[in-house]
Amino acid sequence: MINRDNSETLSLPEVSERAEEKSANGDGGHSYGLEVWLLRALLKAIGNPPLQIVLWDGRVVSTVAAPVVRVFIRDRRALYRLCLNPDLQFGELYSAGRLEIEGKLLAFMDLLQKSLPDYAKRGAWVKLLARLYTWRPNTLARARDNIYHHYDIGNDFYRLWLDERMVYTCAYFPDPAITLEAAQIAKLDHVCRKLRLQPGEEVVEAGCGWGALALHMAGHYGVKVKAFNISKEQLAYARQRAQEQGLDGQVEFIEGDYREIEGTCDAFVSVGMLEHVGLQHYFELGQVIDRCLRPHGRGLIHAIGRNRPLPMNAWIEKRIFPGGYPPSLSEMARIFEPWRFSILDVENLRLHYAKTLEHWLERFEKVADQVLRRYDANFVRAWRLYLAGSVSTFRFGELQLFQVVFSRYQNNDIPWTRDFLYH
Amino acid sequence: MINRDNSETLSLPEVSERAEEKSANGDGGHSYGLEVWLLRALLKAIGNPPLQIVLWDGRVVSTVAAPVVRVFIRDRRALYRLCLNPDLQFGELYSAGRLEIEGKLLAFMDLLQKSLPDYAKRGAWVKLLARLYTWRPNTLARARDNIYHHYDIGNDFYRLWLDERMVYTCAYFPDPAITLEAAQIAKLDHVCRKLRLQPGEEVVEAGCGWGALALHMAGHYGVKVKAFNISKEQLAYARQRAQEQGLDGQVEFIEGDYREIEGTCDAFVSVGMLEHVGLQHYFELGQVIDRCLRPHGRGLIHAIGRNRPLPMNAWIEKRIFPGGYPPSLSEMARIFEPWRFSILDVENLRLHYAKTLEHWLERFEKVADQVLRRYDANFVRAWRLYLAGSVSTFRFGELQLFQVVFSRYQNNDIPWTRDFLYH
Repeated sequence: MINRDNSETLSLPEVSERAEEKSANGDGGHSYGLEVWLLRALLKAIGNPPLQIVLWDGRVVSTVAAPVVRVFIRDRRALYRLCLNPDLQFGELYSAGRLEIEGKLLAFMDLLQKSLPDYAKRGAWVKLLARLYTWRPNTLARARDNIYHHYDIGNDFYRLWLDERMVYTCAYFPDPAITLEAAQIAKLDHVCRKLRLQPGEEVVEAGCGWGALALHMAGHYGVKVKAFNISKEQLAYARQRAQEQGLDGQVEFIEGDYREIEGTCDAFVSVGMLEHVGLQHYFELGQVIDRCLRPHGRGLIHAIGRNRPLPMNAWIEKRIFPGGYPPSLSEMARIFEPWRFSILDVENLRLHYAKTLEHWLERFEKVADQVLRRYDANFVRAWRLYLAGSVSTFRFGELQLFQVVFSRYQNNDIPWTRDFLYH
Repeated sequence: MINRDNSETLSLPEVSERAEEKSANGDGGHSYGLEVWLLRALLKAIGNPPLQIVLWDGRVVSTVAAPVVRVFIRDRRALYRLCLNPDLQFGELYSAGRLEIEGKLLAFMDLLQKSLPDYAKRGAWVKLLARLYTWRPNTLARARDNIYHHYDIGNDFYRLWLDERMVYTCAYFPDPAITLEAAQIAKLDHVCRKLRLQPGEEVVEAGCGWGALALHMAGHYGVKVKAFNISKEQLAYARQRAQEQGLDGQVEFIEGDYREIEGTCDAFVSVGMLEHVGLQHYFELGQVIDRCLRPHGRGLIHAIGRNRPLPMNAWIEKRIFPGGYPPSLSEMARIFEPWRFSILDVENLRLHYAKTLEHWLERFEKVADQVLRRYDANFVRAWRLYLAGSVSTFRFGELQLFQVVFSRYQNNDIPWTRDFLYH
């Protein structure tokens, strides 16, 4: 029973009216107590959100007298898996349809985010497991595998629900009511203005996605761009776009990791790549920028971040962004401090990412049937969970979006105020 | 021979025309080679700026054929001290008149900043010494001693050369040509706007100086302020000002360290105090803010910082700001990250501090004769060196000025964009 249309009206199996936790249908009885005890322990560990859990055999466990959401666990092994490693298995079981949520997934994710205790207060077991799923170095080969995993799903898939320019990073909404298309253009301009691009300048872009920023910089700011990416699918699309727009003389799309960037530039920009770099490689990334950036050059890094260092969610790391890690600002500083870069401006666009993701989720739901036909139900549920969960983590302040502008330390050719960004 | 008016026309003892490094006036000869060798080693260690050094006996050592500045070392022990611990002794000897600079001190400081090699490349000895002068915890008692040292010199002294509001922190110049007075008011407004103060709100200010910001917030934004300070001289002045302006019902000036702050507030602000807190106490400062700030509260910390962690200059630490330390952004994050505060906005106003200090230095020079009569020549020279040296370190990117705006992590009552700051 796939919650395919994410509607509130999903029909659910009827829950019997018998008292909670009462034994049911021929269960040996010995596992009865253990299962309910495990479930109660799990619910307590996640802050007892106002839920009702309905088990495969009809048993019901609630945290409050009037629960606002019902969750169905479809088989016994699903329960054990969930209790053993909730951070990973919630996503696994939801994707597989072995755990179902009644009604809007997003409302449930908000509820969960609200109740979830601070990571610092979670159990040692959860923390140990969290560590297991992170901290692998992203070698050149693994970085390529990781990127293929996510970005080479197929341009057709992303084209279904992204904006027309295929911008897969946080948009900028000068007014929250504008369209996603307008907000993505506003973001491209916000980045270009922060970089103070001048016609004829040379820009290096690390991790260029489908090329929207590179093409925008070239087309609207008259700069020359060398844009690096390791996703073949994205590069093919970006090159075609450049040709269509007559910008292939101004923009070069290069298959290469950030560590393979060569040459020098007036501006270095990276939007939404840092999340894939991995903490262990920030020093190297800084080194690359130090090698590239001319004395009067400017740089901008736009990335998902956190208020403090935390391990990546295990399911997101395994299924969505292998090798991914959103850094805190103190961790981001490891890119800049060893090379004496001067941080000039940091803007946190957290609510803009919540808004961007709301648009994506809504657009995704509109095409979910098409996605289902092309892929399968597990794929649809995984993406629904990833998008809804992301809306929720940005809404509740668990993730941030940092735009960091920097220059070399002795460069005095920097704007006197930020006034120019707003006029 | 005090370079009292800092003029270019200071008469200098005539330097004989004999060949450089030639032995002179009855020196035993055995120390001759050692002294010049030491001096050459010192000059090399500071990057061989284009100087001519004139020793007490008339000997001359130059780094280049056409040196642009002459430095006089007035006695043998001064040379030895300087070579042993240049970071501390340069200031000591300059203040004592045992080392003199021909012409504008600021031009010399710029030259020095430009040539000085990166700290990472300086000798192990210099680094060891640098460590000796920092890393003492600022206990409550020591914090009070440190603050008395600098801020209780006397209000009369600061009144001579600060702006009329006695603002002793970086100003904000929307246009670099405006007066210091106008730029200090612009800074107060910039801070208030960033905090989005609403009439009737309650504000805690940690380290309020002579009260200019507290009075401005109360008088122009209609808020109630509790302003903390441990400098008795400053508090006396601030209280008198509050009374004169009829704001003593709205602003309470409290003698207390930031660790002694009690109560709750809608906005927490600290301008130019963090430099005195010391790295070991950032966690405690964050704890204080966490205790005070209401769920929808906003915070702003304005402080001198660095592009990367470095020890404090020994002379500044000893003579000007005992216990002082300008942090890098990753170090500042230690205030916020343990308490899940969300950094919303960081603005680096480095060039504004260079400009502010230029104003201060110019105003100080205008009253140097008055300062001399009230204190002594050593005091005048120490302040001249501190101000000129600071202009230079901000100009050459060795120091930064960070304004950091933050809120609690789940607070969504944050501005959608920064547009409102610029309209």
